[in-house]
Amino acid sequence: MANTLEMSKKELVSIAQRRLDKGVGESLWSMRQKLALTCRILYDGGHDSGLAGQITCRAEQPDTFYTQQLGLGFDEISTSSLIQVDQDLELVAGSGIPNPANRFHTWIYRQRPDVNCIVHTHPAHIAALSMLEVPLEISHMDTTPLYEDCAFLKTWPGVPVGNEEGEIIATALGGKRAILLAHHGQLIAAKSIEEACVLALLIERAAKLQLLAMAAGEVKPIPPALAKEAHDWISTDKRNTVAFNYYARRALRQHADCLI
Amino acid sequence: MANTLEMSKKELVSIAQRRLDKGVGESLWSMRQKLALTCRILYDGGHDSGLAGQITCRAEQPDTFYTQQLGLGFDEISTSSLIQVDQDLELVAGSGIPNPANRFHTWIYRQRPDVNCIVHTHPAHIAALSMLEVPLEISHMDTTPLYEDCAFLKTWPGVPVGNEEGEIIATALGGKRAILLAHHGQLIAAKSIEEACVLALLIERAAKLQLLAMAAGEVKPIPPALAKEAHDWISTDKRNTVAFNYYARRALRQHADCLI
Amino acid sequence: MANTLEMSKKELVSIAQRRLDKGVGESLWSMRQKLALTCRILYDGGHDSGLAGQITCRAEQPDTFYTQQLGLGFDEISTSSLIQVDQDLELVAGSGIPNPANRFHTWIYRQRPDVNCIVHTHPAHIAALSMLEVPLEISHMDTTPLYEDCAFLKTWPGVPVGNEEGEIIATALGGKRAILLAHHGQLIAAKSIEEACVLALLIERAAKLQLLAMAAGEVKPIPPALAKEAHDWISTDKRNTVAFNYYARRALRQHADCLI
Amino acid sequence: MANTLEMSKKELVSIAQRRLDKGVGESLWSMRQKLALTCRILYDGGHDSGLAGQITCRAEQPDTFYTQQLGLGFDEISTSSLIQVDQDLELVAGSGIPNPANRFHTWIYRQRPDVNCIVHTHPAHIAALSMLEVPLEISHMDTTPLYEDCAFLKTWPGVPVGNEEGEIIATALGGKRAILLAHHGQLIAAKSIEEACVLALLIERAAKLQLLAMAAGEVKPIPPALAKEAHDWISTDKRNTVAFNYYARRALRQHADCLI
Repeated sequence: MANTLEMSKKELVSIAQRRLDKGVGESLWSMRQKLALTCRILYDGGHDSGLAGQITCRAEQPDTFYTQQLGLGFDEISTSSLIQVDQDLELVAGSGIPNPANRFHTWIYRQRPDVNCIVHTHPAHIAALSMLEVPLEISHMDTTPLYEDCAFLKTWPGVPVGNEEGEIIATALGGKRAILLAHHGQLIAAKSIEEACVLALLIERAAKLQLLAMAAGEVKPIPPALAKEAHDWISTDKRNTVAFNYYARRALRQHADCLI
Repeated sequence: MANTLEMSKKELVSIAQRRLDKGVGESLWSMRQKLALTCRILYDGGHDSGLAGQITCRAEQPDTFYTQQLGLGFDEISTSSLIQVDQDLELVAGSGIPNPANRFHTWIYRQRPDVNCIVHTHPAHIAALSMLEVPLEISHMDTTPLYEDCAFLKTWPGVPVGNEEGEIIATALGGKRAILLAHHGQLIAAKSIEEACVLALLIERAAKLQLLAMAAGEVKPIPPALAKEAHDWISTDKRNTVAFNYYARRALRQHADCLI
Repeated sequence: MANTLEMSKKELVSIAQRRLDKGVGESLWSMRQKLALTCRILYDGGHDSGLAGQITCRAEQPDTFYTQQLGLGFDEISTSSLIQVDQDLELVAGSGIPNPANRFHTWIYRQRPDVNCIVHTHPAHIAALSMLEVPLEISHMDTTPLYEDCAFLKTWPGVPVGNEEGEIIATALGGKRAILLAHHGQLIAAKSIEEACVLALLIERAAKLQLLAMAAGEVKPIPPALAKEAHDWISTDKRNTVAFNYYARRALRQHADCLI
Repeated sequence: MANTLEMSKKELVSIAQRRLDKGVGESLWSMRQKLALTCRILYDGGHDSGLAGQITCRAEQPDTFYTQQLGLGFDEISTSSLIQVDQDLELVAGSGIPNPANRFHTWIYRQRPDVNCIVHTHPAHIAALSMLEVPLEISHMDTTPLYEDCAFLKTWPGVPVGNEEGEIIATALGGKRAILLAHHGQLIAAKSIEEACVLALLIERAAKLQLLAMAAGEVKPIPPALAKEAHDWISTDKRNTVAFNYYARRALRQHADCLI
């Protein structure tokens, strides 16, 4: 006999959240392992544009960051090949050099103490969408974690090596978790590696869905109140950890060398 | 010398059906094995949107259902990891928790005693099509098993955790075998796991064909009488079993761990 | 010092043909092996729509044909699993049953003594294009082997199990090597297995290029005289054999069990 | 404490260039190895249209060239199977015959002493774009190495076996590094194998992005001055070597037999 078919949605949401909280595991990996796993997960998720793109996270030592070496693809990054740099991109630990475009990460970390991980990439659908100079349009339940949470920089300021570009991008991002950069790519600024990884996969999927839908017809909006409710329901720390753990297990089937 | 070149289509259809009935095998797997195989088959068929999506079937014990654990991807489900839940989503057997969105499955099972298996997923082409708020358009012989057999819920009622969404979806589905849910995904309600699996692969293919065709031009209708004839010819229990067995063999080449 | 830079195109074409004739190998496989290889090659080339599609070739015994068993996918066909049937689709050798839709192959073989191999499939791009009721448009050098060599059946006569559909399709095909069947798929009728395999891969590629181009803009025609010259230059028996041998080597890397 | 956040972009670019110059490696392979690797890299990058396409580079002996044998796919080329031919396409070393379409390579090498490697292919997105008779449109930072550096031959002169086509293509190319050939494909003429390989991957990616964007909306231009700056920043010999080395490592994971 069914007992819950008379319950209100509020009660049911509360039950579901409690179950999720105790029913699923915690993070299984160190910060460096999670950063390396993110590289492999994103590679498999189409975040591949040659050697473009950088992933960084705050390291334990203040004002220093872990990032990948310039010259290695996301599919080659392992825990041991990560480097640690300071705000000037000077090497603190490890060998090799960082991507000079990491500079605008510094600008974002300085402006956003809540941000602990940044993923900046140029996957194909984001890149194609960015050529149209239109914002990301959230019209599907699965992509609502980016609803009113993805800024848009409509003008391309040129190759992002200077401080100017850092300021422009950080300002355009504001307090949001994501930004679409016209003629360039996307950037996720998140409070954890898990959140950054999940949102990075999601923004490329959102761009793919948008391009498919725009090519075939007219994308229809979703009700703002429901979209915001879905944003908060789907995008919790717990769910991001559960999803990240799944993506990590999947990546490790192809990339057993990642945790070396 | 050819003897059948003068026969009517009716006679030939009848011969073909009889041959098929005795010429090909029966189901080779248990209910739980078929459910786990369906997860892997659909994963390979693009029914992957992170951890979204649920697959359920009626278990031997009344008002209980087999389903996958929340937190595992379709590519990770095996016979032994399936769980059994009741109508309130309380665990009857196995460990872990179900997806709280399974709630609307309960509503459909209660309304449709003929339904023994439900597949609800958000594959990419279904998701993109669902952003346009247009119904699935059947314009190809292969997709006629969904001809006049796919309902359409044009409004998105929000995250489907409450009983409200269960009622809305079950009502919109009516007596059909499939429904396209705007801004959300698709749901198949079928009398067997084989039928559900085959139709789920088909609806994503139908969405892909529709998007490709709409992007390039204007989709043309097919004659209703011929479409209905094809619906019945292609979508028989026997053909669904033959097709499922093929997909299962194919999946097992990649997913040898599925039947554990 | 370059000696051929003053030569006319006619002389150069003649030199190139002579070189090709003596420079590259002959067929390496038996008829049955080539038919099984074609199944695997086409599977890898996207000619997969569940269990739809049939491939046949004339066998040594008059009015009999080799074809695949119903219930096996193209990725499962091997030399030993092929069956031999007569014009009435009665089994002559092997076990299992043929696809009842093979019937329209019989109609084509009777009308076209020059045809020794037929490939009928529903790959995704052909299927999507067929929903638009527009003919295949040849606008690229590589696809000129189908220039003025691909018929078009604009109306769908229903499931092709009857003799009516055999007559309709055979008539629409006429003397050409290919036909696009609206709301259905494609058919290649060729003088050898090699030619059929190469053209089947090509027609799906042509449909893909056409859909991509139509979605993005207006497909422009190519000059008929040059298109015909390219048709004859590219589509020779020798080139088809060279290309088939390459595709077969490639397929065997993935499908070592094909020649069993 | 950050020291570089006040520096001008010019200073930062100069620091980044110096770091890159000493921080990353040199070429690791012989000319023949690099040519064979390029075949495999491009195969994986979608530069596959059966046996169409040729890759050549100047050999040590003047007016001779390394190229692949006709009849082998890009996925089959290894160091030992490359052949050496002269300007008349006569064999100088190795066995087999060259593609007769190599003739127009001769014309380009004679006109452009700065060119040491030519890659001519018909990948799918280039092929589809070429059917529209529109030039390549550079609207993304990553593709700026082709900004004002990709010519366009709007008319298709027929199968490129004659000297006429050689003259037409060489003339249309002029001093640029790339050309889009309507109804045909693309050609890269570069000063090194590394540069040719990187640009060939890039032009197919540019065509893919352009088709995706055109299907969904209107491609917006980028500011010419910034585009030129990006062209020079991204497309340096050093960066091309770093990128080629990465692609080569990646290809070798799938193609261990390439360096035989």
